Amino acid sequence: MKRYKGYLIDLDGTMYKGTEQIKEASIFVDTLIKHNIPYLFVTNNSSQTPEKVAQKLNDFRIQAKPETVFTTSQATANYIWEKKQDATVYCIGEEGLRDALRKRGLQLVDENPDFVVTGIDREISYEKLAKACIAVRNGATFISTNGDIAIPTERGLLPGNGALTSVVTVSTNTQPVFIGKPESIIVEQALQVLGTKKSETVMVGDNYDTDIMAGINCGIDTLLVHTGVTTKQHLSNYEVQPTYTVNTLEEYVNNVF
Amino acid sequence: MKRYKGYLIDLDGTMYKGTEQIKEASIFVDTLIKHNIPYLFVTNNSSQTPEKVAQKLNDFRIQAKPETVFTTSQATANYIWEKKQDATVYCIGEEGLRDALRKRGLQLVDENPDFVVTGIDREISYEKLAKACIAVRNGATFISTNGDIAIPTERGLLPGNGALTSVVTVSTNTQPVFIGKPESIIVEQALQVLGTKKSETVMVGDNYDTDIMAGINCGIDTLLVHTGVTTKQHLSNYEVQPTYTVNTLEEYVNNVF
Repeated sequence: MKRYKGYLIDLDGTMYKGTEQIKEASIFVDTLIKHNIPYLFVTNNSSQTPEKVAQKLNDFRIQAKPETVFTTSQATANYIWEKKQDATVYCIGEEGLRDALRKRGLQLVDENPDFVVTGIDREISYEKLAKACIAVRNGATFISTNGDIAIPTERGLLPGNGALTSVVTVSTNTQPVFIGKPESIIVEQALQVLGTKKSETVMVGDNYDTDIMAGINCGIDTLLVHTGVTTKQHLSNYEVQPTYTVNTLEEYVNNVF
Repeated sequence: MKRYKGYLIDLDGTMYKGTEQIKEASIFVDTLIKHNIPYLFVTNNSSQTPEKVAQKLNDFRIQAKPETVFTTSQATANYIWEKKQDATVYCIGEEGLRDALRKRGLQLVDENPDFVVTGIDREISYEKLAKACIAVRNGATFISTNGDIAIPTERGLLPGNGALTSVVTVSTNTQPVFIGKPESIIVEQALQVLGTKKSETVMVGDNYDTDIMAGINCGIDTLLVHTGVTTKQHLSNYEVQPTYTVNTLEEYVNNVF
């Protein structure tokens, strides 16, 4: 195992587990800070602002600031801004997405947008979906913050943004550009924010299908930690293995620092 | 061309066109009535009751009663009733669907249903979709009134029930049973209501992909009329041709009666 100059770090399953703290995760982040190594928390959650995500991490005794959080909403805003700096956007989504788009200087509009963006929206309505479909049929570029099909909750698995997005995909017969993990776009955008090279950076996460695949798709090293979704048994089914695999992030710290 | 003992007849594009009357359609229906030939209007529209559909047809000078209308909502209710007569159903949909399910004696419930049914619902909400996903994940049989991806309106093509249905399909990774055209289920159910044999019945419609395919899938003869969606040019692309093709239904009447 090697030490990297930059760390991209997943949240749920990696830094905490649902409502539970992961002690070894705190040790891992504390170690990065002690060695002045830059890191960025990278999340597919589009609904919350970086401020709220950082607060949540702090509640789990993980050191984090809004500047060390990078959401798929921010990645989406950056991606659109790179395509067209004065773009107009019709947005289905919650506070985190609307906030990120506005902070990037993009203009939220109801009609004739350059882009249609979909993020999880628990106030989804037929009218919102209708506006998105009309805009995509009229030629707006269709972007989705992530393809997550389900969100784990106390009630069970509820529809994720990937499922809501499918209404527009199916109705207009148009595939969106997905931004979040496992796509490489969010990782490319995160690398720009972190400022480290691909060869110097590792993607850390618990979910092979999202975190590790995002790293692989982007061409960076990956570190899988077995504190969340992907078990050792699951992992054995995959042909391309993560660069490193550990049971806890403390195991990585003890090996490398 | 031949005369049949029973006629299954599409609505939009066949009996009227958007807000326009089709004169030859009235002549066709008047001729069936004059010869005491049973017919049934068969529609993928799940939102309206047979009473409202019949009223709309009357407004276009087409003779129709609630008993001569068969909606995909009624087909759905009959289909479920045949599977389980005391079934509980969680329903996403409008008046026409809820009404049809209740009239068939099925019980609409919010939790732990035997069946989840989706029809077009312009009051769709995240909570409704969440309930449907939870129920399907818990083993409820998943049924959709139709796979129509878009609804033509004055504003343009808005999301159809097939697009809304996809939220549950994608989130739960479960394909629904579709009832409406081009599936054979609605035609099978319509034949039971009409009471004629397959060999004696013809499906009449303007849309190859829905009406004619429904007839073909069910194994009955088909009559395509060029007053709606499918033009002569479109039709030439299909390998399996309708049994008969006419420019207007008056052409059929003049040939056969």
